[in-house]
Amino acid sequence: MLSKNKIKLIQSLNRKKDRDETGLFLVEGNKMVEEAIASGFRIALIACTPDFFAQYPELKHRTEEWIETDSETIRKASLLQNPQDALAIVYQEQHAEPEADLQHELCLALDFIQDPGNLGTILRIADWFGIRSVICSANTVDVYNPKVVQASMGAIFRVKTSYTDMHEFLKSSIENQVPVYGTFLEGKNIYTEPLSRNGILVMGNEGNGISPEIAQLVSHKISIPSFSSGKGSESLNVAVAAAICCSEFRRR
Amino acid sequence: MLSKNKIKLIQSLNRKKDRDETGLFLVEGNKMVEEAIASGFRIALIACTPDFFAQYPELKHRTEEWIETDSETIRKASLLQNPQDALAIVYQEQHAEPEADLQHELCLALDFIQDPGNLGTILRIADWFGIRSVICSANTVDVYNPKVVQASMGAIFRVKTSYTDMHEFLKSSIENQVPVYGTFLEGKNIYTEPLSRNGILVMGNEGNGISPEIAQLVSHKISIPSFSSGKGSESLNVAVAAAICCSEFRRR
Repeated sequence: MLSKNKIKLIQSLNRKKDRDETGLFLVEGNKMVEEAIASGFRIALIACTPDFFAQYPELKHRTEEWIETDSETIRKASLLQNPQDALAIVYQEQHAEPEADLQHELCLALDFIQDPGNLGTILRIADWFGIRSVICSANTVDVYNPKVVQASMGAIFRVKTSYTDMHEFLKSSIENQVPVYGTFLEGKNIYTEPLSRNGILVMGNEGNGISPEIAQLVSHKISIPSFSSGKGSESLNVAVAAAICCSEFRRR
Repeated sequence: MLSKNKIKLIQSLNRKKDRDETGLFLVEGNKMVEEAIASGFRIALIACTPDFFAQYPELKHRTEEWIETDSETIRKASLLQNPQDALAIVYQEQHAEPEADLQHELCLALDFIQDPGNLGTILRIADWFGIRSVICSANTVDVYNPKVVQASMGAIFRVKTSYTDMHEFLKSSIENQVPVYGTFLEGKNIYTEPLSRNGILVMGNEGNGISPEIAQLVSHKISIPSFSSGKGSESLNVAVAAAICCSEFRRR
């Protein structure tokens, strides 16, 4: 059974403060726990039903502790509306320095993304398009927020993330002749503009776009043209815009 | 002031049954109420602060009833976590028959989209890419669900939506030589496949994709290739996939 203390620990991982202090994060749902097991991440605890355990007997070699329990107990501990048969407490991987060979690969840089669902979806998009690194500004939502983890659909285990001073990071990249792309309403048409195979693609905040101090470091301003006649939507959701941009960078 | 009965009516619009019975839906937030005022939709009630009213004095000609009240009362009535200065009760527009000239334009067809955020985001994408009609299967989430309305960021006032028997609709479209596109893992590469300017693009359910009975009516199976090396994400979020497809249809 899951002790009261374990349940308390699980639920505490909804708070950034507690995640920072423990260096842990929460992974919920059968598919996601399966992804955690298949990943290289160190796992502190897996709690699951006997049925789930029977499906993944190797899980006991992948975790420091495992507990078989019933669905009702998992439901009690869970932060999800529809809990499943397994959850895991996983050690965070710290990537202090952005890990990307920017002379040869494309990475995403996120300037103050606030919504956890958007960040998770962006990780999933990066994973799909073979982008290995996502660099976040210090004020971007915590990648280990449970809602980010769930929305990433497992991409969190594959895409490297790091938090950094975005201004410094872009400045030193520019000095190394790395092209920095960013979307702006007045940018050049992404469908006709030449796009390089390497560099940084900056995505901005949900409400305000790329911040002025970051905008001045963008060497290639691009835009996704609207095809709406007359008064149409003024913007796209940031994850949607990221997807269209990644698709354009990769398709050629 | 907003009477208790009005607050009850506002909150009842969170339930499909009550929306169906009254033919009304709820619009919240300054930007969204502004969009409602600018739209052709008939408005039953606007409740707002004196400040909001001062900004849009013409609103009283656009609504059957308007009430100035304080932020606290709006907060009480609101379904949002962060209510603003205005909300509106708006009459639904019923589009019984799909309205699209499929010989000349592209429309989206949604097969059992369940998540309101996804539906709202898809409407916003359609609006951006100048797609006038979104046709929903009968089991797709209600377009007047408040979460759909909010996620659409106003696109709900511009994109025509209708609910229909998807199987019948596609069958008759095929008989009229309308191309029907749909995304499948085994489909042809969307980046190299010729895409027509007119027709129907089917997007499938979040968990299961396009249902088998609809899949057999798809004349052009396409796919968005993954660029992930090794084991990557198995799928993209449906709104993200819709965005990439719409971008591809429009860019040429």
